[in-house]
Formats: sequence, structure tokens, C-alpha cells
Amino acid sequence: MKAFMDENFLLETDIAQELYHRHAAPQPIIDYHCHLDPAMVADDYRFQSITELWLGGDHYKWRAMRTNGVHERLITGDASDWEKFEAWAATMPYCLRNPLYHWTHLELKTAFGINKRLSPQTAREIYDACNDRLQHDPAFTARGLMRHYNVEMVCTTDDPVDDLRHHRAVRESGFEIKMLPAWRPDKAMGVENPKAFGEYVKRLGEAADVDIRTFADFTDALQRRHDFFHAEGCRLSDHGIEEFYAEPYTDSEISVIFNNAFNGAELTKQEIRKFKSAMLYFFAVQDAETDWVQQYHYGPLRNNCTRLFQQLGPDIGCDSIGDARTAQAMARFLDQLDYEGHLARTILYNINPADNAMLATMIGNFQDGSVAGKIQWGSGWWFMDQKDGMERQLNTLSQLGLLSRFVGMLTDSRSFLSYPRHEYFRRTLCNLLGNDIEQGLLPFSGYEEQRVRQMVEDICYNNAKAYFSF
Amino acid sequence: MKAFMDENFLLETDIAQELYHRHAAPQPIIDYHCHLDPAMVADDYRFQSITELWLGGDHYKWRAMRTNGVHERLITGDASDWEKFEAWAATMPYCLRNPLYHWTHLELKTAFGINKRLSPQTAREIYDACNDRLQHDPAFTARGLMRHYNVEMVCTTDDPVDDLRHHRAVRESGFEIKMLPAWRPDKAMGVENPKAFGEYVKRLGEAADVDIRTFADFTDALQRRHDFFHAEGCRLSDHGIEEFYAEPYTDSEISVIFNNAFNGAELTKQEIRKFKSAMLYFFAVQDAETDWVQQYHYGPLRNNCTRLFQQLGPDIGCDSIGDARTAQAMARFLDQLDYEGHLARTILYNINPADNAMLATMIGNFQDGSVAGKIQWGSGWWFMDQKDGMERQLNTLSQLGLLSRFVGMLTDSRSFLSYPRHEYFRRTLCNLLGNDIEQGLLPFSGYEEQRVRQMVEDICYNNAKAYFSF
Amino acid sequence: MKAFMDENFLLETDIAQELYHRHAAPQPIIDYHCHLDPAMVADDYRFQSITELWLGGDHYKWRAMRTNGVHERLITGDASDWEKFEAWAATMPYCLRNPLYHWTHLELKTAFGINKRLSPQTAREIYDACNDRLQHDPAFTARGLMRHYNVEMVCTTDDPVDDLRHHRAVRESGFEIKMLPAWRPDKAMGVENPKAFGEYVKRLGEAADVDIRTFADFTDALQRRHDFFHAEGCRLSDHGIEEFYAEPYTDSEISVIFNNAFNGAELTKQEIRKFKSAMLYFFAVQDAETDWVQQYHYGPLRNNCTRLFQQLGPDIGCDSIGDARTAQAMARFLDQLDYEGHLARTILYNINPADNAMLATMIGNFQDGSVAGKIQWGSGWWFMDQKDGMERQLNTLSQLGLLSRFVGMLTDSRSFLSYPRHEYFRRTLCNLLGNDIEQGLLPFSGYEEQRVRQMVEDICYNNAKAYFSF
Repeated sequence: MKAFMDENFLLETDIAQELYHRHAAPQPIIDYHCHLDPAMVADDYRFQSITELWLGGDHYKWRAMRTNGVHERLITGDASDWEKFEAWAATMPYCLRNPLYHWTHLELKTAFGINKRLSPQTAREIYDACNDRLQHDPAFTARGLMRHYNVEMVCTTDDPVDDLRHHRAVRESGFEIKMLPAWRPDKAMGVENPKAFGEYVKRLGEAADVDIRTFADFTDALQRRHDFFHAEGCRLSDHGIEEFYAEPYTDSEISVIFNNAFNGAELTKQEIRKFKSAMLYFFAVQDAETDWVQQYHYGPLRNNCTRLFQQLGPDIGCDSIGDARTAQAMARFLDQLDYEGHLARTILYNINPADNAMLATMIGNFQDGSVAGKIQWGSGWWFMDQKDGMERQLNTLSQLGLLSRFVGMLTDSRSFLSYPRHEYFRRTLCNLLGNDIEQGLLPFSGYEEQRVRQMVEDICYNNAKAYFSF
Repeated sequence: MKAFMDENFLLETDIAQELYHRHAAPQPIIDYHCHLDPAMVADDYRFQSITELWLGGDHYKWRAMRTNGVHERLITGDASDWEKFEAWAATMPYCLRNPLYHWTHLELKTAFGINKRLSPQTAREIYDACNDRLQHDPAFTARGLMRHYNVEMVCTTDDPVDDLRHHRAVRESGFEIKMLPAWRPDKAMGVENPKAFGEYVKRLGEAADVDIRTFADFTDALQRRHDFFHAEGCRLSDHGIEEFYAEPYTDSEISVIFNNAFNGAELTKQEIRKFKSAMLYFFAVQDAETDWVQQYHYGPLRNNCTRLFQQLGPDIGCDSIGDARTAQAMARFLDQLDYEGHLARTILYNINPADNAMLATMIGNFQDGSVAGKIQWGSGWWFMDQKDGMERQLNTLSQLGLLSRFVGMLTDSRSFLSYPRHEYFRRTLCNLLGNDIEQGLLPFSGYEEQRVRQMVEDICYNNAKAYFSF
Repeated sequence: MKAFMDENFLLETDIAQELYHRHAAPQPIIDYHCHLDPAMVADDYRFQSITELWLGGDHYKWRAMRTNGVHERLITGDASDWEKFEAWAATMPYCLRNPLYHWTHLELKTAFGINKRLSPQTAREIYDACNDRLQHDPAFTARGLMRHYNVEMVCTTDDPVDDLRHHRAVRESGFEIKMLPAWRPDKAMGVENPKAFGEYVKRLGEAADVDIRTFADFTDALQRRHDFFHAEGCRLSDHGIEEFYAEPYTDSEISVIFNNAFNGAELTKQEIRKFKSAMLYFFAVQDAETDWVQQYHYGPLRNNCTRLFQQLGPDIGCDSIGDARTAQAMARFLDQLDYEGHLARTILYNINPADNAMLATMIGNFQDGSVAGKIQWGSGWWFMDQKDGMERQLNTLSQLGLLSRFVGMLTDSRSFLSYPRHEYFRRTLCNLLGNDIEQGLLPFSGYEEQRVRQMVEDICYNNAKAYFSF
């Protein structure tokens, strides 16, 4: 019986252990997609408690607590920090086999040096120990944690209307870890909610200093903001969509749809799809023209629980995996861009593992030989961001594409404690390779041994470094 | 080489063996969803032959025989008991790797104490031995078999028009094993077949003593029957649907649709969907108001072979897995109930394993903290009720929910010999846990060791005991 | 650490090794579905270089090279044979974990006796060694390679307009390996492209010596060609479709649709679906009446990259896996045929592994006991034709059907070097059985041991031999 989460956690073979410790672990972290709050980095924020850090916004934990029968007051309500932590500690032992069990203990171990397991028995001790470090240890600020995990750079996720002043402040502060913005214009596609859309257009107009009255004004404003983001170092966009949209449309149709949405009219489903098709295309061309990388996170059903959405807003643990069929639209969308010479480097993330094989083969259609791995299948995302999900993504990518060219892991996280997910990914990667070698499925001598060793370093670091133009 | 089906069958590690033998095996069986014939329990039915017991209604075996090239006469036709058994015995060796091979030999072993393998060589010997026990051994009646397998309670599956007299007879007989009805009103939604629907409405009216002329009469009759079932101890409903329905509708639309269907008119697809939406909602509210548990078995395509359907009727081995997309409708349906405070404890069963991850995340949207594991993802169902299907359900549930809160296994069976499926499930569960512990993926000392041991007992018995209000 | 690709490659247990070497390896190959060029067999073609053989038409390799950042000139362009081979050799080490790595080295080993690994270091040496054998060794012609791999028969894939003269030439040449045509009338369904359809109808009319003016003429011509194929020994059809079509239609509707398409008119989506429904039915009845086997390869999205399609045509590496829902149409289509007594032996191939369970259960609906394994789920196809894809197909088929009755592997290949895929499949099959036996999941003594041994031989050879009426 192997000890729980020892230094060779997840590493079943000697080869895997060597690959991990020698080649994977030493690599710095390029976290090219996350949701950190730039202000916290700018201010070198200090967390007041482990409750704030762990339970302040982590909807994974909230879901687990609700499933465990915990009352909402102890999750998002007005209970004290200790009460909430205690409820979480009581939930933890019921999370055995859930990735939260691994994440939590990897975070305790790698950030706080705590090797105890969180349970009602250890809750108070761990609570106090963590809070002590957070409140008093100089290394336990936002920046301190990033340094601790050997982060080289991060890309946050930012709305076009954002003024990016926190990014500038960080840059000017001389902080040695690079933080760049990423362009996420989801709200500019949100015509299904005309009221929110209209308000957003106004904010966009103010940010871009454009008096938006027409669709042309609208895209003009978006172009100005894109230019501004580019000037601030942004080289990456991201889009959160339920499915892909590639409906035929005319410019005049889009103008009319825009006017109607802007004036608060409800649109038909088909109008909404046309508008989203037009915007996806517009954004993709922008990115191609400035040589950015574009990302698409598609597939979730969001805000499924209206009761909690009205109470707490979005991103509070009531999202799930959708089952839309979207392969044809995705192909049409990418094909048009490719045909017109407007296909930027692209990373596609699916949320439903039933789409894995489809997506792994879709990317192969549009590799054009200009850049190795130009079209990427993103690492296991959200619900798939765990051992099984990572393994399936790595295995399917291996079978249907070139694993060697994969740009690897990202946290996609709001937390300064999520960097152990890179460690988890790297261990998983090395373990798969080790098992293959052990079974004679991969060669491991001479030229190929060097290639395997290099591949590990590439996927952990070099590929992302080369792929992005940061 | 491990011996076939020995006492540590499916248990690959010492830990798994200990967990199973010490914690799982001793638990009584709560079979909260099955299709036993209540009359057989009431009458303490004695089977005349192993052919009747095994081949009288088991469409799994019928499918296998047809696939093996066996003529229908030897399957559902007028062949003798021995001829049918012989044809099955000749098919058995061709079932290697099919779950039928395991089910059959587990049943021979645990019920009859026969450790021989069924084949043409052993057919006669096994046939005679089984028949001898069935015909003469006092322990081999319906009730005897239930006692033999340490069953504590079962829930059958009953139509609202059923008078439940067999349930009453069993209750009044003092039989120590509890048998409760479950409410399965599928026929009350079957407006796609107006003729059968009209006949059903008449039978319902008679059962409820209501002269049904309008939709209001119809729901009134259903309510009376629901009250009656409740009075008879029913606390559980079940719905067999092809997909979820959550179309918008008005009460007057539904009244008109009902009248048309009742009068034998063909409905449009959209009318059928609206009516099913209204009925699903109606039944869900009924269950919430009486604090029942509701179950949904969704996804199969039924009666695909018209030739055999006309010859033999439904449930004869010509059903298969569908590929409908239903996530949005499921979310809308559950959301409305949750929003209105009408969401009862709910168990959702999918038949297509491609939906596993979707469903495992769907349940998380509507956990409200009121009851641990309020919304459940049901155990591997029908085609998924085998080792691989169980493992995938358990693994995906672990990754995306809380395995610890799972209410566990059920037979879903028409047979008094299906209880070894609980054993099979329990072995599979313990094996997964044992492997995880062996590999250092789960802690297994101190508090957490006790938790793992408790979790096994909980999933096998305690969780179901606590979850249902029997 | 097991050596890479040694004699026990993929065989993890002693039992697997024995099953493979003793029962699987000695079986001849029946390659019942491939895309060999009949002219090459007729002419006993000699390849001029390993570049021609490997890179002349292998879109798997082209995709990998594009993904690796190789310029199109070195893939399908005017670069020299050596330049292209060099680019492929440089790509090879980046294919670690991709099936191409295994295919390539199995081909080098089993055809050329080369145990070196292809990389930039070995490229020249391997290039020269292969070319020397190809150009000078009498055994390295098209026929020589077929003999070398112990091929007993192959079925090519042929258009109804084909005159089959190469097939006749081969037959008359006394070549000891049987080569039969297979009927693939995809173009006769291609009304979505009226221009190409119209041209095809003209070619068909010429081939059948029918002046086609009406739909009746069209089906008359197809019937004549079907008769001709039958006379030439054809007993097998194949259909490449995006999804299944089972729309209701009338004969007069189809006549009108045919006339419109023939006259170059664009059809509506619904007209296209109706026409395809009618043709699928027509072809299926043809096959039933002549007792052929019919195959359906469904699910891919083809020619996704318009840029390369215009440059290079179809089948050049820009196809991928679709996500259409097609279970209902498939069931309706098969049911109608079954009901009318027109359901021929049928093999169904899916391309999306998310459909595996659906398809594995679909075939069970229409097994009628007339022939063992009448409806087959085809072996892992295209993107699924690799270790993981084969294992999933074999496992899912085992769980939901009868593995014992499986007709086994085919290459589906354009290459005379693809026969090691049979070896790969056989090793994978034996490995699964060996693991099951080792773990006590399958019996392996007495009657059942003989059954397992026989099952291996059956799946590798005897089942196909018995199933097809060649």
C-alpha cells in the first residue's frame, strides 16, 4: 500500500518518477488562462483567513457542501469564517474520490506544509495554522504565493471595457512575474438579454469614447478596445459559448438585429444565432489580424438554478455540462476563417467528455503547417480538470493528434492556491508515459529516450512558451 | 491465474477483500426499484422449472439467443422447457465476456450452490438439479429466495389503476420482508397512441371512481389514485421516458390536447411534447407535496422491431440505447420545480453512457442542502448494469459528485434470482476503493480509514435506508 | 521494462501470449473491406520508393505532418521523394503515442525486417534499405506483399460504373489470393450536389447501357450494374453516409426530386433527406434479394477544409468525427427492412466512440436467429482503428452483445502494407482475454478453455469465413 499523496503521488513506475522529478517539476509555470483578480496582484493582497481564500468564491466547494446537506447560510450566507470552515471540514471526508480531496490536500501540503488530512478532528488546528501564515507570514500574499509556485507568467480574463489599470500597476511595480490581460468579450454577444446588452453597449461606448448608435459604431468601439488591449500587451482572447454559431447572415441583417437588441426588443432564436455568428467571426478576424491566440470554451449550461441565480448571481455552482451538437457549426466557422486566411492560432476547450474524440479530430482539419500545433485541443477543463479527465484528454489527443505539440496545462482558476493543478497535470502526464514505456508501448533508449524526456519539458513549459507571442 | 468466480471474485486487492467481506457482504438488501410480480410474493409462488425462472421473461437472455442464431421457437415459442433450456445452455459458452455469463453463474452458485459452468456438457445435470430444488425444496419459493438473499425490503413498479391487493395480502400475511408499491404512471402520458390512451383513461376512471370527461377529471382521478397509493405505503414514483419534456404550455392548451387524444385524434409532435411536459410537472408536484422520492429512467428507444412487437408485445429484447439530447429540457424541468419549492428528492437514471458526465453534473445544480444527496444519479441501469457500466457510473459520480452520499444499487429486475447483482455491485465498489487505497490515491488510516469503511456500509445500505421514507 | 515492440508486443500475460502465438497469428487474413487499387493487383505493381508507398496517399500521415508544422510542399507538393521522406522521418518522433508510431514500426519490422526506429538519425539508412527492397526484391510487389502477409482474400471498394476489368484480369491470371469487388454506390445518393449528380447519372447510364431519363430508368440502371457486380462475384455492398435517413416519402416525390436534381436544380434539405432515404432503402432491398452483406460507415464530417479540398480534392486529411444524432433513423430504417423481410446481413460502423453503446445495443434489436451474429457492429474504424479504439469496441461489444460471433478485423486501407493492423487487432484481442482470465473473470479450463481458444480463431478467421458468402 502506497502512502497517501507522498512524493511519488500518481507516479506508478520508476520511469514516471524520474520523468516527473527531473524534467517536469523544475519547469516554471506559464498559466496562460486564469481568472485571478488583477487588483489583488497589484495590491499584493493579503488574505485574512483560509475561509476567504478557499470558500470566498470557490463554487466547486459550494456544490460539494450543498450535496453534503449543508445549509446555504454556512456556504454563501452570513455565518462566520470559522463556521463556514467547519462546515467545509465536515464535508471534506465525504469528498473521498472527488478531486476536491486531492486539490485540498495538495494545497495544504505545497502551500502550508501541512500533511494532515482535513476532517472535523483536524479542522481547528488546520484553520489556525493556515490563518497564522496568511495573516503574518510575509510570503503568504498574492505575489508571495505566485513566487512560491515558480510562476513565470499569468494571463487574466478581462472584459473589453476594463481599463487594465491593475495590469499597468503591476507592470510598473517591477513585479518579476508577468501578468497580461486576455480579451473576453462575451457580453458583446449577449443579445439574448437585450436589457443587459443595451447597458453593456453604453459602458463599451464610454470605455472606447465612441457614441454608439449603429452596429458600425459598436464594432468600431470594440476595435478601439482591442487596439488598447494590444497596446497593453494582450495577445490572447477567450470566448465562453454554449455552442458554436455559423449561421449565414448579411451585414444588413446584423445591423437590424443590433438595433433591435440595443433598443430592448426581444429577438428570435434565429436572430440571436445570426448575431452570435457575426460576432464570433468579427472577433476571430480581429485576432488573426493582430496575430493573437484565440480560445473557445464551449458547452456548459449555465445558471441552471434560477433560485440561486437570483440570490447569488452567476458562477455560484449551478452550472453543468451540456449536450448540444455543434461539430458542423464548429467546422464551418473554422473553415471560413481558414479559407479567407483569417484563422489565428486557436485553442478549443470542450466541457463534455463525450465530445473528446470529435474535437481531437476537428483540430486536425485545420492544421496548416505554418506553426506546429497551430490548432490546439485545450487541457481538461472545469469538470474534466481532474485525473480521469486529464488522462482521457491526454490519451485521446495522443491517439488522434500529436501529444508532443500540446501547449499543456492552465489553472482556469480564481485562486492563488490553484497552481498545484500544474503539478497534478505533470504527474499525470509522466505517469502515462511511464506506464507506456514500462509496457513496451513506447521506445525509451537512444534518440527516442531523449525525445520522451524533451517531450515532458516541452508540454510542461517550452511548447506554451513558443506558441504564445507573449 | 485467479480461479474463476471464487470468493474473492472481482476483488483485486487485500483491502478490497476485507472491505467487501467485512463491511459490504453483511448488509441487508434494500431493493428500492424492481419489477417483481406482487402476486408471486403474495402467493409465495413456486417455480416449476429453471426454464420458467430463467427464460420465462428475461429479454436479456432472449437477445443473446437470437444473436447466437437460435430460432424463435426455442426462445419464446412452443418448444418444451427442456428444449429451451438446452438452447440457452448452448448459447452460454458464446456469452463469455457478456455480463450474462457472470449473472448466470452467480445465480447458480449463490442460489443453488452449483459451481459447475453451464454448457452443453452440463446442461442436463444442471437442469435436473435446479428443477429438483425448485419443485421440492421448501426454501425455493418466491419468499424463500428473498429470505435467502437477506432482502429487507423491495419496491415493485405499479400502474395507478392497480388495486394493490397483492401488496395488502403480503402485508397482512405477516411476511417479514417489506414489499411496497411504486407509482409508475407512464400510460397516463401516452397520448402518442390515442387509442390506447383513451382505453387507459377509462380504466383509470373506473379505478378512481371518477367519470373522466375533462383534463380536470383526469388529474382528479390521478390524484385519488396517488392518495390511495400513499395510504398503501407508497413513497416512490418512477417514470419511463424517452427524453425530458419542458415545453411551455397553457392549461387551456393541455385541456384541448387531452380532449383530442381522449377522442382518438392524432396529435402533432409538439402537442405530444406539451402534454408530456404538463404531466411530468403534474406528477412531480404530487410527489413533492407528499414528500415522495421520484425516479426518472430516460433514454431508451423501445420496441424497435415491429415484427416481434406485433408477435410478442413490449419488453421482449428489442429495445436499445437512444441518443436524444435532453440536457436543456432536464435542467428547465428541474429548475422550475426547484424555483417553486416543488422539487422532491429525485433519482435520475440515464441509459446512454455518453450522458454520464452531463448527468453527474446536472444533479449538482439542484442540491439545495436540505438533504444530503437530495438529487441522485441512479446506479448503472439496464445495458449499463454490468461491471464496466457500474465502474463508470461510480467513477464519474466520484469525480463530479459525492460518492459517499450515493444510495446505491437496485435490481430493476423481474426475477427472484437477481439479488446477486447487489453482490456484484458491492464487490465492484470495494474493488475500486481497494485499488485507490493501494495506489495511494485515498488515505486509509485513522479517521479516514473509518470513513472509508463506513462509506462502504453507507452505500450498500445506510444511505438508502436514510434517503427513502419507507 | 518491456522492450519496445518485441515478439510479445501488446501481450501482457502468458495466456495472452499463448493465445496469440498459437491461435491468432497462424490464421490467414480475410480483408473483407479495403480500398486497394485493383489495377495494382492486376499489374502486380512495383512501388518505386517507400515515399510512394507510405506518403503517396496516406492522409493519416499528411495530417500528422501538417500538425507538426511541415509545409504542404513537403507533404503533397512538388518536393522530391527524399525531401518528403525526410520530413516524415522528422515528424515520426513527434508521433510518440500516436498509432502512426506503431503502424510505421510494425510495417518496417514485418515487411522489411527493419527493427530500427525511424527518426532524422536513421532516415537515410531506412529510406535506402526500403527502396532497395521495393525496387529489386521480387517479393516486394503488390502481390508479393499480399502473399507475405498470408492474405486469403480481399474485397475492394468499387463504384457501380466500374467495369471491374482489373478484377477479371486478376481472376484470370490464376493469382491464388481472391480479390472480389464491393458495391459502393455513394455517388448515386449525392443529390446535394446536382451538377456532380447529373454527370454521375450520365456515366451510370453509359455503364449500364440505359438511357436514363426518369427515376425508374435510374434504378433500372443500378439494378443492371448490381446484376453485373453479382455476376463478377461481388457479395458485399458498402455505404459512406453522414447519418442514417429514414424519412417518409412517396414514389412520386422521389421521381420529382430525381428529375430536379438531374436537371441541376438545388434541392431543399428535406428533399435531399427524402431522396437519400429512398436510395438507402432501394440498395438494402437489392442486397437482401441477392443475399449480399451490406455495410454502413456512418458519421464523419468530410472535406472540412475548403482550401485544401479545392487544391487536393477529397480524402486528403481534412475529415473528422461528427456528432449527429441518428439512432432513431437507424432503428426505423432497419425495422422497415426487417418487417418486410428485406433485412440482409448487415455490418454497421460508427466513427464517433460516443455512439459505441448505442450502436452495440442497436444491433441486438434486429438479430432474428437466422444467422449467428446477423447484424454486426464493425471493428474500430478510421480514427478508432487503434489500440484504445479497438479495446473499447471489443469491450463494449462483449458487454452488450456476443463477442464470440464477431467477424473481426479489416484494414479499410489503400495500402499494401496495412496488413499488420490485423496483427495489432489480434494481439489486442488476445491481451483482453488474457487479462480477464488472469483476473478470474473468465473460466479457463475444460470445456471453456477450448471455447476461449476456439473463440480466438473464430474472431480472427472462421467467423468471417462463415458469415460472408464469398
